[in-house]
Amino acid sequence: MKTMFVWVALALALTLGSARVQAEDGYDLWLRYRPVPAEVRGVLQARARAIVAATPTTPVLQAAVAELQRGVQGMTGKAPALSTRLVPGALVLATPAQALAGLDVPWADLGREGWLLRSQKLQGRDVTVIAANSDAGLLYGSFAWLRAVQTGANLARLDQRSVPKVGLRLLNHWDNLDRHVERGYAGASLWDWWKLPDILDARYTDYARANASLGINGTVLNNVNSKADSLTAPYLAKAAALAGVFRPYGIKVYLSARFSAPRELGGLKTSDPLDPAVRAWWKAKADEIYKTIPDFGGFLVKANSEGQPGPQDYGRNHADGANMLAEALAPHGGVVMWRAFVYAPEAKDRAAQAFDEFQPLDGKFAPNVIVQVKNGAIDFQPREPFHPLFGAMPKTPLALELQITKEYLGFATHLVHLGPLFEEVLQADTHRGGTVARVVDGSLHGHKLTAVAGVANIGTDRNWSGSQFDQANWYAFGRMAWDPDLKAAAVAREWAAQTFTNKAASRDAIVDLMLASREAVVDYMTPLGLHHLMDTGHHYGPGPWVNDLERADWNPTYFHRAARDGIGFDRTRTGSNAVAQYAPALARLWSDPRTTPPELLLWFHHLPWDHAMPSGRTLWAELIARYDAGVASVDDMGRRWAGLRADIDPERHAEVTAYLAVQAREARWWRDACIAYFQSVSGLPLPAGTRPPAQGLEHYKSLRFGFAPGRG
Amino acid sequence: MKTMFVWVALALALTLGSARVQAEDGYDLWLRYRPVPAEVRGVLQARARAIVAATPTTPVLQAAVAELQRGVQGMTGKAPALSTRLVPGALVLATPAQALAGLDVPWADLGREGWLLRSQKLQGRDVTVIAANSDAGLLYGSFAWLRAVQTGANLARLDQRSVPKVGLRLLNHWDNLDRHVERGYAGASLWDWWKLPDILDARYTDYARANASLGINGTVLNNVNSKADSLTAPYLAKAAALAGVFRPYGIKVYLSARFSAPRELGGLKTSDPLDPAVRAWWKAKADEIYKTIPDFGGFLVKANSEGQPGPQDYGRNHADGANMLAEALAPHGGVVMWRAFVYAPEAKDRAAQAFDEFQPLDGKFAPNVIVQVKNGAIDFQPREPFHPLFGAMPKTPLALELQITKEYLGFATHLVHLGPLFEEVLQADTHRGGTVARVVDGSLHGHKLTAVAGVANIGTDRNWSGSQFDQANWYAFGRMAWDPDLKAAAVAREWAAQTFTNKAASRDAIVDLMLASREAVVDYMTPLGLHHLMDTGHHYGPGPWVNDLERADWNPTYFHRAARDGIGFDRTRTGSNAVAQYAPALARLWSDPRTTPPELLLWFHHLPWDHAMPSGRTLWAELIARYDAGVASVDDMGRRWAGLRADIDPERHAEVTAYLAVQAREARWWRDACIAYFQSVSGLPLPAGTRPPAQGLEHYKSLRFGFAPGRG
Repeated sequence: MKTMFVWVALALALTLGSARVQAEDGYDLWLRYRPVPAEVRGVLQARARAIVAATPTTPVLQAAVAELQRGVQGMTGKAPALSTRLVPGALVLATPAQALAGLDVPWADLGREGWLLRSQKLQGRDVTVIAANSDAGLLYGSFAWLRAVQTGANLARLDQRSVPKVGLRLLNHWDNLDRHVERGYAGASLWDWWKLPDILDARYTDYARANASLGINGTVLNNVNSKADSLTAPYLAKAAALAGVFRPYGIKVYLSARFSAPRELGGLKTSDPLDPAVRAWWKAKADEIYKTIPDFGGFLVKANSEGQPGPQDYGRNHADGANMLAEALAPHGGVVMWRAFVYAPEAKDRAAQAFDEFQPLDGKFAPNVIVQVKNGAIDFQPREPFHPLFGAMPKTPLALELQITKEYLGFATHLVHLGPLFEEVLQADTHRGGTVARVVDGSLHGHKLTAVAGVANIGTDRNWSGSQFDQANWYAFGRMAWDPDLKAAAVAREWAAQTFTNKAASRDAIVDLMLASREAVVDYMTPLGLHHLMDTGHHYGPGPWVNDLERADWNPTYFHRAARDGIGFDRTRTGSNAVAQYAPALARLWSDPRTTPPELLLWFHHLPWDHAMPSGRTLWAELIARYDAGVASVDDMGRRWAGLRADIDPERHAEVTAYLAVQAREARWWRDACIAYFQSVSGLPLPAGTRPPAQGLEHYKSLRFGFAPGRG
Repeated sequence: MKTMFVWVALALALTLGSARVQAEDGYDLWLRYRPVPAEVRGVLQARARAIVAATPTTPVLQAAVAELQRGVQGMTGKAPALSTRLVPGALVLATPAQALAGLDVPWADLGREGWLLRSQKLQGRDVTVIAANSDAGLLYGSFAWLRAVQTGANLARLDQRSVPKVGLRLLNHWDNLDRHVERGYAGASLWDWWKLPDILDARYTDYARANASLGINGTVLNNVNSKADSLTAPYLAKAAALAGVFRPYGIKVYLSARFSAPRELGGLKTSDPLDPAVRAWWKAKADEIYKTIPDFGGFLVKANSEGQPGPQDYGRNHADGANMLAEALAPHGGVVMWRAFVYAPEAKDRAAQAFDEFQPLDGKFAPNVIVQVKNGAIDFQPREPFHPLFGAMPKTPLALELQITKEYLGFATHLVHLGPLFEEVLQADTHRGGTVARVVDGSLHGHKLTAVAGVANIGTDRNWSGSQFDQANWYAFGRMAWDPDLKAAAVAREWAAQTFTNKAASRDAIVDLMLASREAVVDYMTPLGLHHLMDTGHHYGPGPWVNDLERADWNPTYFHRAARDGIGFDRTRTGSNAVAQYAPALARLWSDPRTTPPELLLWFHHLPWDHAMPSGRTLWAELIARYDAGVASVDDMGRRWAGLRADIDPERHAEVTAYLAVQAREARWWRDACIAYFQSVSGLPLPAGTRPPAQGLEHYKSLRFGFAPGRG
């Protein structure tokens, strides 16, 4: 009789469950928590019999507990209860305040946000300790434990700890108030400003969970090309509503501030940063903001760049502007992130301008200002040398700005994993005492204010990022912002295990494909140090021929300088001499083509087409070989993916397959269009055996893309 | 041992199921197919043991079978198999071609798309017959059976049949190629043009399923304010990809055609519809379209309206323009839907212009042209009298254009059910021989070409329509397009049962709330025949004071004409005499305030503030009483909804509650702003006991909404 009852109850439960099964659409990201095999389930259940935490719990601690319950429920079918007793098999969330007898944790080494995971005996019971000095640390530790479970760690012998090396780990949303996302390729903005603050989409919470799982602790809600409206009372109330959703996940909100707001909103005649009325306006505005959002993070500012207003409009410099805002925020603990991405029409080399404007200001910024520098000096190209400002402003905290959204790397359609790009810039040796990572984490010059910012690739698309694999770029950003020394391969392995499969061979095949994808895009778009070859406006397809834009340095021809005599931008002493902005040792190396790495060759040098490459080929032949290698690599990615069919759910396998087919076609488009164009300039025959472009140059030049997404 | 095995297998299944359970987010619309109670499950399983259908199946038939399987699977946990044998308990999908012995169906009465559902004995077995003359009819019949199940019909005694009264049942998407939706309040456009034709979002299929479930058989993909680009080869390929997804669901694609395309795309010097080169260009374009989309539906055209190009640019009339396009489409069986929504700056009464331009052209249109007329002569106001063209163009097929998206009725934030509005216009007596429904279904004047179009309220929001209750407007549109004589209450009952609960008391409470909501919005926005009182651009909040727009007939003051002497637009002989466009019997009634229904009073009459109303109140007091009634009705909706908490899932209950709170606040805003303004004009004291507006008029006038969604 009892058996019958069980049968009926379970049959009903089964029915209830199965009716709701949804296709794998990617919404769950890397927090999938799918059922584990029976043998793992037993181990996991034995290690998650209960959750022991301080009571009453804070909202952050509640979020940690809820996530552990959700994860274990998903993987085993049963959520562990919250307990005050130290039962065997407990997950123990411990802070120093609890003073748990027998617990030996090096609290001082964990900092404010770090965590420790350890399976151990405690008061005679086998438990797993998640220890931290703050609730936020416990939240991060809880996600770390779930990551350990999902990536197949031995739960009986856990002994991990991690402390973030960077203080502010931020997403930058280039989201407009009308929900258009500049350089967004994943639908519209998540922020439904019109319905805020009343209507809180459940998705805001899942966004916060995903970020917290990576350690991201701040988000700039609106575009750096900002509207003053975002600083008005109605929009502050909306931002406050989002802050309320994010707060339990340790995430602060920030806003991009429009420099001319005192004129636009305050009715002042000027926005001059040295004008007392302007300073008073910002001070009052900061007070108003903190009244609305007590833990507001601060301002991100794009000033005197691409038409944005700024202090130079009044004959002041960037430090004058940043310090004025810093003064307003300082009483509240807020920071100013002042972007170094500037270039003026008259600059002789756009790559040199940020350095020229900012380096002389080193030491002039207020303590709560951090200068935010893009990874390279142009603009998020498939490959750039690291930005010369890194290491060159020792008295100024510098934030690293990475672009997660793939403005110049095939949008969300091309599979390009950015982990290797992030690693390349972070591990670049500045030759001024350390790597970019050591500049950014503050250790090289002893700065406490540290930040890494990523331009978000998140939108309303169900899969968040426009494609399944673009989720990995969000993931890699977050993990490497927490620890800039993480290896891209290791991070990709974590992601693939959680997102697709924990089966080692398939997981590693996915990782191989991801790691190969970045060099592939460099090769089929901009090999050998070429850059900015894309067509106007959309930044998607090839346009190396474009030479008619209003500003010289908007034209690809400005950047590649291809002519009958050769190709490449001379940034040595005989050219713009931008190379001299790097440390002398590096400048020396990169001034000579023979000691410049081939992947940066045409970034720094203008060379004849018959220049001999290390491969033994001429530059012309090498260029074509690289384009071919890029195409071949994409084809190879397609083959590898096809081989994974058995281990991936059919929905996502088919979806990725469709995207890879687009990429294979468009890699050829890039190759063919660029080769056709460069041949028209070089006048050289194609090397023997080269496949000629599928169409004539005029065809490629004729293509138009009027409604490309993400336009500025 | 066997029991143990079952236990383990079921426990695993339970785990697998429960891990994927998702919150109720509204994505499933009315096709939820949630598990039914055990007693119903038995009956349902006995009535769906197998699906018998012709083999090999066509794609449309496959879609029907798949939907039946999905539905039964969801409700009972087990999908019926496809069978060739007539087993007891089968669902038999029958067409005349199968010549099933013993089956007696009045085939001739079912037409091309109609269906019959009948539980009966067939060859000695108890079965359910779904019969139709076409696969599309079987698809509609299958959805009808699922609807019958979900609304609690007696499955042992089914005997229903239905034949659509209108041939073309179309959604009009005002979706731009950049994914902005004009008057869209549910996120961005579903159509990801950039990724089409390669990437086919799974959502396209669910969109088609939802439409097919209602009988919608066509969709115009792009905005009537159109770009010529949508007629270029790349965009035709994208439209063809969507057509491929929709085809198995009986849905054809249509495009809005830009009248100036011959100049913009073809390089011609003119788009004059009488120019042979222009005609040849359209003919070639039609040939190209049909080569790409063999079952293309036709063109929708907005011409010489609000700045759109059209035949009048060349001194030609609407018939000249429409007939040129009709000529190009006719060889392929395509239709032209030519919109009658026109008004010129110099018109003395905007409400009169469409009639003045179109009525004289009656009989001048080609046979494959249908003139598409909005329900009223202004523009989708909370209430308008039916459009005077209905009944006045007997020689011309007229399509009814309804607006499902709530441009003027509180966007997706306010709960306003449109079923009663649709019913009101369809059942309006034209006094020219029949109701609007009889004009639209072609029966009054013997037209075979018939159409009802609805401006879609669908976007990328997870719940499709921006709010849960806005889904009901899509539903009501589709059902009433199929059968214009369906009652709004019956349709709402179906929807509520499928979408929320089949428990009679709760279902009926939801229906009551829905039915009350339309009069509520009329009362708190534009009572007593007032119209077009909204603020500029966004069309959301009140702006009765606006009088400074470029064109007179964009100003609310133009429409309400409130002054010290009274309020209302005199459309009788002493005014614009637009009332004379109606049938004489009706014109007579509506020319006299005493025989004009109060709800249309100020549409046709300018009356003194102390005009005596049937209620005994003065007009001024009645106006305020109506505003108060609107606010009270919204409060009442909130109370009713709160009482339903036990029967609605917590996610959707909480969400709707939040929306109703916004609506309650904003109904007061409308009331207070309008009363404050009208009082400033009338100079009259508020009647005793009236709650004064919460703020002064200047406050309401100062509100700005710069980033309202859906702007044109």
